[in-house]
Amino acid sequence: MLTIDRIHHAADVLKSVVRRTDMIRANLINPESEVYLKTENLQVTGSFKVRGAYYKISQLNDEEKARGVIACSAGNHAQGVALGATKNGIKSLICLPAGAPISKIEATKRLGAEVCLVNGVYDDAYNKAVELQHEHGYTFVHPFDDEFVIAGQGTIALEMLEQLPDLEAVIVPVGGGGLISGVAFTLKTLRPDIKVYGVQAAGAPSMYQSLIDHRIVRLPSVSTIADGIAVKEPGTHTFDYCSRFVDEIATITDDEISAAILALIEQHKLIAEGAGAIAVAAAMFNKLPIQGKKTVCLVSGGNIDVTILARVVKRGLIMNGRTCNLTVELSDKPGQLLGILGIVAEQGANVISINHERSGLNIDLRGCYVHLQLETRNNEHIAHIMQALTDKGYKLV
Amino acid sequence: MLTIDRIHHAADVLKSVVRRTDMIRANLINPESEVYLKTENLQVTGSFKVRGAYYKISQLNDEEKARGVIACSAGNHAQGVALGATKNGIKSLICLPAGAPISKIEATKRLGAEVCLVNGVYDDAYNKAVELQHEHGYTFVHPFDDEFVIAGQGTIALEMLEQLPDLEAVIVPVGGGGLISGVAFTLKTLRPDIKVYGVQAAGAPSMYQSLIDHRIVRLPSVSTIADGIAVKEPGTHTFDYCSRFVDEIATITDDEISAAILALIEQHKLIAEGAGAIAVAAAMFNKLPIQGKKTVCLVSGGNIDVTILARVVKRGLIMNGRTCNLTVELSDKPGQLLGILGIVAEQGANVISINHERSGLNIDLRGCYVHLQLETRNNEHIAHIMQALTDKGYKLV
Repeated sequence: MLTIDRIHHAADVLKSVVRRTDMIRANLINPESEVYLKTENLQVTGSFKVRGAYYKISQLNDEEKARGVIACSAGNHAQGVALGATKNGIKSLICLPAGAPISKIEATKRLGAEVCLVNGVYDDAYNKAVELQHEHGYTFVHPFDDEFVIAGQGTIALEMLEQLPDLEAVIVPVGGGGLISGVAFTLKTLRPDIKVYGVQAAGAPSMYQSLIDHRIVRLPSVSTIADGIAVKEPGTHTFDYCSRFVDEIATITDDEISAAILALIEQHKLIAEGAGAIAVAAAMFNKLPIQGKKTVCLVSGGNIDVTILARVVKRGLIMNGRTCNLTVELSDKPGQLLGILGIVAEQGANVISINHERSGLNIDLRGCYVHLQLETRNNEHIAHIMQALTDKGYKLV
Repeated sequence: MLTIDRIHHAADVLKSVVRRTDMIRANLINPESEVYLKTENLQVTGSFKVRGAYYKISQLNDEEKARGVIACSAGNHAQGVALGATKNGIKSLICLPAGAPISKIEATKRLGAEVCLVNGVYDDAYNKAVELQHEHGYTFVHPFDDEFVIAGQGTIALEMLEQLPDLEAVIVPVGGGGLISGVAFTLKTLRPDIKVYGVQAAGAPSMYQSLIDHRIVRLPSVSTIADGIAVKEPGTHTFDYCSRFVDEIATITDDEISAAILALIEQHKLIAEGAGAIAVAAAMFNKLPIQGKKTVCLVSGGNIDVTILARVVKRGLIMNGRTCNLTVELSDKPGQLLGILGIVAEQGANVISINHERSGLNIDLRGCYVHLQLETRNNEHIAHIMQALTDKGYKLV
C-alpha cells in the first residue's frame, strides 16, 4: 500500500538522479483559467518515466539486483529502465518490437541497456520478455502497475505543490494509469481540495471506460498518435487508485492533440509527444471544468519521432487556420492566375506554393485547376479569402 | 558607461517581469566538454530580448514615457519592446517589413503594440521608424546599441553565475552584439577567468570581420537561416565591448545550425530558432576551444517560424544520416524491387517512401528508376546500405 512517507522517500532517492523540472506559466492556452505547464518533457530521458523506473530498481534487494532487470516497452519506459539500471550499476535487458523507431532503439542502447528486438508488435515483445524473465530470473519492471513505480511518479506532485502552493487543479495524461495514480494519491492525501483530472486519447480510452463500467475493461484495439498512452487495459493497482482519487477523466481526439503539440511549439518552444501534449489539449478545448482555477497541465514527455513531428506540425498548421489549401477552377485564358493572386495579396495571405494543373479526367477540355497553398492567420481569415474569390466569380472546387 | 551596479539594478527591475530561465545539462552535444544550456528560448516572448527592452523602457523619464516608444524589428525585439511598453503602461509602435511572418506580426499585436507594416525590407521599415520618431517625438528603442539595453541582457550572466558557479566558458550568439556585450562585460568584471566566446552565422559575420579589421565593418548583404542575428553592421558601443571583453568569435554554417536545431529537438525537447541554436552548433562541431571546460551555450530564442521549422527538420534529418534518398537504376523486370527491399530490410533501415519511375529522357527504354527514401541510423549505416546494394549488382544513380 502506498503511503505519503513512501512518496517522500522516493523523492529523496531521486534527488540526485532526476531534474526538478520547471513550472512555466502558459498565458494563451485557456483564457478563462490560469494555466501552468509542469515540464516533464525536459526531464532526463525526455519523460517522467525515469522517476518510477529508477525508484523501483533502487529498492530491489541485492540478489534481485545481481540478476538484473527486464522490461518491455517501445519508448519512454525503456529509456527510464535503462538509465535507472545503469545508474544503479546493474544489467538491463529491454524487449522492443522490431518496428520501433530507430531513434528510440538507439537512445535505449546509449543509456546502457541491452536491446532485444522482437518480430511483431508490442504484445509479442511482452511475451518474449516474460519468457526471458522466467528463463534467466531477471526482475520484471512493470511500466505502471507497481506501487514502487507509482510512488516514483508521485514525486512530481510534491514538486508541483512546492512550485505552486496555491494550485487548484491538475490535468494528467492517462495510459496504464501509473502517473495519475501517484499524482492523485499524493495530492488528495496532502491537499484533498485540489481537483485531479485525467485525460485519455479518444482512440485508447481504457481507464475512462473502466471507470464508467466500475471494472477493468480490456479494449480490443487502440489507435492514437499518443503512442505513450495507447494502453489496452489499466492495471489492478492503478484502476483502484483512479477509482478512489481521480475526479474525472476526459477523452481527446488526435486532431486536438496535434493542435496542442503545435501550440506548445509556437507559444512555449517546447516539444511534447502526443501523450505529453494531451493535458494541454484538454485545457485548450475546454474538456474539463477548470474555469477560474490555477491549473497545472502535466506535460509528461517529449519523445516524439522527428518524422512524425514534421507531419503533426503540418496537420496542426491546417487545423489552426495557419495554412490552407484551396483549389480554384478556371478557364485557361491569360490573366486568370494573376487575378487570383491579386485577391490573395489584397487579403494579406502569403503564397507557399502554386500548382497549375491542366490535364485530368474531371476537367472541361478548355479549363484547368489551380491548387494554392497559403499561409493564413486563422480560419476566419481563410473564410474571408474564399468569400473574396467567390465574389469575383472564381469557382472553388 | 556600463557598471556592474547597473547590471544588478537591471536584475532587480526585471525580477518581476522576466523568467529566471532554467540551466539544463546537455550530455551529448560535445563529449569532450561539460555542456549546459541556458534556455532563454523559454523566456517570456520566447527570447532574451525582453530583458534589454523592458529595462530600457523602465528607465525612461515621465515625459519620454508619455510620448511612447518606437522600434523597428521583424522579430524578437518587436515582442520585447511591445511587452516592455505594455507592462510599463505606455504606448508602443513597431515598424515591421510587410513580408514579416504573420505569426510574429500577430504575436507583437497580442502583446499590445501598434504595428506599422512597411512595404520593402528591414531597411525600409527602419527608415519609416526614424521618420515617425521625428514626426511624433517617440523614443526610439534600439535593438542592441544602447547601454540600458546591454545592461538588461547582462542580467543573464548573473543568473548563469548563480546557477553554475564553477562555469569556465560561455558561448553566445552575436548579431548586433548587444547580448554578448552585456554577458561579456558582466562575466569579465566579476570573473575574468571565464572565457567568453561569440558565434556568428557564416552568412552574416559583421562583428567577426570588424574585430579582425579593428574597425566597424558594414557588410553589403547578409544571408542565413539565423534571421535573429542577420545584422549588417555592429553598433559602436557593442563593437567596443566586444573588442575589450570577448576572447574569440567563430562562424557557423546554416547546415551546422540546422543540425543543432535538430539536436535540441531530439535530445532536449527544445525549440530554438537559428540564432538560438548557433552556440550549440559551435559546441557540436568543435569550433571553439572548450575541451575540458564546463561550458554554457546560450540558447537565445525560440521564435522560429513553424513552416521554416518543418524544412529545417527535414534538412537536419538528412545531414545527420537519419534519412537518406537513394536512386537505383534497374531493368524493368519482375522481382527487381523485391530484391532491393530485401537488402534494405536486411540492413535494418525503414522505408519512408518508394517512387518507381518508368519514363524519363535519360533512361534506357527497357529500364527504370526507383527512388527510395529510407529512415536510417547515421551516415555509416547509409554507407553500408549503399555497399550492400552495389555488391548485389544494383546500380546507384
